[in-house]
Amino acid sequence: MGRRRATGRPTIADVAARAGVGAITVSRALRQPDKVSPALRKSIEEAVRELGYVPDLNARALASRRTDVVAVLVPSLTQNIFSDVLRGIYDGVEDSGLRIEITNTRYNNALEEAQLTTILRHQPAAVIVSGTEQTAVSRAMLERAGCPVVQIMDLTDDPIQKIIGFSHERAGREMTQHLIDAGYRRIGFLAGWMNLRSRQRFDGYRCALEEAGLYDPDLIGEVGNDEAVKTDDHLFSTAMMGHELMLAMLERRPDVDAIFCNNDVLALGALFACNARGVPVPDRVGIAGFNDFDYMEAAFPAMSSVRIHRWRCGYEAMMAVRDQLNGGEIGEPIVDLGFEIMKRASTDRRGELPAVRDRTILQTLS
Amino acid sequence: MGRRRATGRPTIADVAARAGVGAITVSRALRQPDKVSPALRKSIEEAVRELGYVPDLNARALASRRTDVVAVLVPSLTQNIFSDVLRGIYDGVEDSGLRIEITNTRYNNALEEAQLTTILRHQPAAVIVSGTEQTAVSRAMLERAGCPVVQIMDLTDDPIQKIIGFSHERAGREMTQHLIDAGYRRIGFLAGWMNLRSRQRFDGYRCALEEAGLYDPDLIGEVGNDEAVKTDDHLFSTAMMGHELMLAMLERRPDVDAIFCNNDVLALGALFACNARGVPVPDRVGIAGFNDFDYMEAAFPAMSSVRIHRWRCGYEAMMAVRDQLNGGEIGEPIVDLGFEIMKRASTDRRGELPAVRDRTILQTLS
Repeated sequence: MGRRRATGRPTIADVAARAGVGAITVSRALRQPDKVSPALRKSIEEAVRELGYVPDLNARALASRRTDVVAVLVPSLTQNIFSDVLRGIYDGVEDSGLRIEITNTRYNNALEEAQLTTILRHQPAAVIVSGTEQTAVSRAMLERAGCPVVQIMDLTDDPIQKIIGFSHERAGREMTQHLIDAGYRRIGFLAGWMNLRSRQRFDGYRCALEEAGLYDPDLIGEVGNDEAVKTDDHLFSTAMMGHELMLAMLERRPDVDAIFCNNDVLALGALFACNARGVPVPDRVGIAGFNDFDYMEAAFPAMSSVRIHRWRCGYEAMMAVRDQLNGGEIGEPIVDLGFEIMKRASTDRRGELPAVRDRTILQTLS
Repeated sequence: MGRRRATGRPTIADVAARAGVGAITVSRALRQPDKVSPALRKSIEEAVRELGYVPDLNARALASRRTDVVAVLVPSLTQNIFSDVLRGIYDGVEDSGLRIEITNTRYNNALEEAQLTTILRHQPAAVIVSGTEQTAVSRAMLERAGCPVVQIMDLTDDPIQKIIGFSHERAGREMTQHLIDAGYRRIGFLAGWMNLRSRQRFDGYRCALEEAGLYDPDLIGEVGNDEAVKTDDHLFSTAMMGHELMLAMLERRPDVDAIFCNNDVLALGALFACNARGVPVPDRVGIAGFNDFDYMEAAFPAMSSVRIHRWRCGYEAMMAVRDQLNGGEIGEPIVDLGFEIMKRASTDRRGELPAVRDRTILQTLS
């Protein structure tokens, strides 16, 4: 495969050898693709892909100096989850002299791969990327990036370098166990499009119910894995979607007695659907969400949810980047921030929770 | 004031003349502030501020070549309003070769001024900035930026170059008029911290009520202009805040018959407060919000709101930037995208709206 640089990154000579052409041809094909034949371009592109080669656009001018830009890849700019993560990242970058470049991968792994190619060409100081769902090519590029790489919002035994997040599977399992413990028996699941993190939550839900002998696949309501949904984040988990999925569930399975929603937006819609049909929450149907947005506590009844540490995820990722850029160690490669099961009135079937909420509000007002 | 460059931007010589020192001293004070006396530094910094001088960090290497970065300044990364604007900007940038650098100004005009100084030093290709509330220094810097500058999410007769948005005052007035027309008479207003855009909405509310002889300043519930609120976007307009403000209003003024909330997050909390107190919406109290987030239509009852064109604001701002960078004209300097008053069940006191919503949902399901 030819010589490698000290960084271990493949060189243009490696690509040339793999494609069976000269380095100058490779260089021309990359800079001016119209100047080479389609067949030649294709074989060079394949060699680039196989080796995970990243051309360095700044090489001539800057040798291999890094920029001061931290590249951040998030799957959505529309959902509050990632707004909070970004706020943590921005809070973490203050007074560092670093700048942030945000890229919206739109939950599209192929797009993420193309974006990473561009991002790494610009020699970022570090990369922060959501989750563990990268393609093999993306992962190979990140492994050879030669800069700090932090994955966030998930956990894996096999991080690229470092990962800061929590277990969606365990969170799904514990919330479902809470519903079982609260006395519910026909516990459904509502979801929009199921990405990896949603599937992990669902796996936790299924395991807890299977262990209790309560799993019933007919109690699952989801929008389905439609390509149209994946490419337009307008369509991700709207409250209207939760409202409609819940109405459909109440029609099809009037015996459903609890709903674990894949996120709070769906849970909010499900609550309104119960209100619209005069279904008492939590006595007839319990409702739980995921994320613990502020409106879950403000709702009536206050709604149970899984509190995750979005801001902290972004903040600690940026701090880990700064430590490394200042010459520090990478530290623990797997950082589990955990989560909290917030038990509130919407799943309190047996009236076991102290009814403190209204008292708290009235104290605030007096 | 010495010579100016062809761009009209003040030069380092201008700063030196104003401060009564040599250009080399100015250069040293800017690059190595520790090497000059505090008094000298202060007088040079004053001259820099008065002239709106922006040192060009890339000047030596790059003459005056612009980067491919579009700088975007938004007041919050946490609120959905700006997530939608950013999504429009990202959708607009695709295939342009431009990159986006987002800066969070945190509704802090002094911070925005400091951020702009840094941003303009890096010679952005263009700047997109929220609103019209810039300080005089920020405005002077943007006027001399020598690149396309687009203000968004507001309107003014006097844009820096171009502004794309809508009138918050007119939207506030029209929603209030809708509440009057629907038969409400004691119409309150709920707000968190009042920034310029909130005050404009409030002005519209007050004008409409004054014209109808219905204005009552005792029907206003707000969190107040607390500095702590301004510097932490955690505290902006939470649903819990809306819940508590509404409970307080119902205690103090049980005769209130409608509430215009400065945004949908507060309206959602206000609805839950009415649910918690058994106050029927819309018969006893009507509720309207601002922004028309998806949950307003999904709520029960479905809630009235002002639909604004957030995505389009971001998208058209980016398109305007691209047109200019491609050598096109600036076009109309003031682009009014308008808004829509979404009239739904939550303000339908007289039952005048066709009850189509549930039918629509059931058709979707069948």
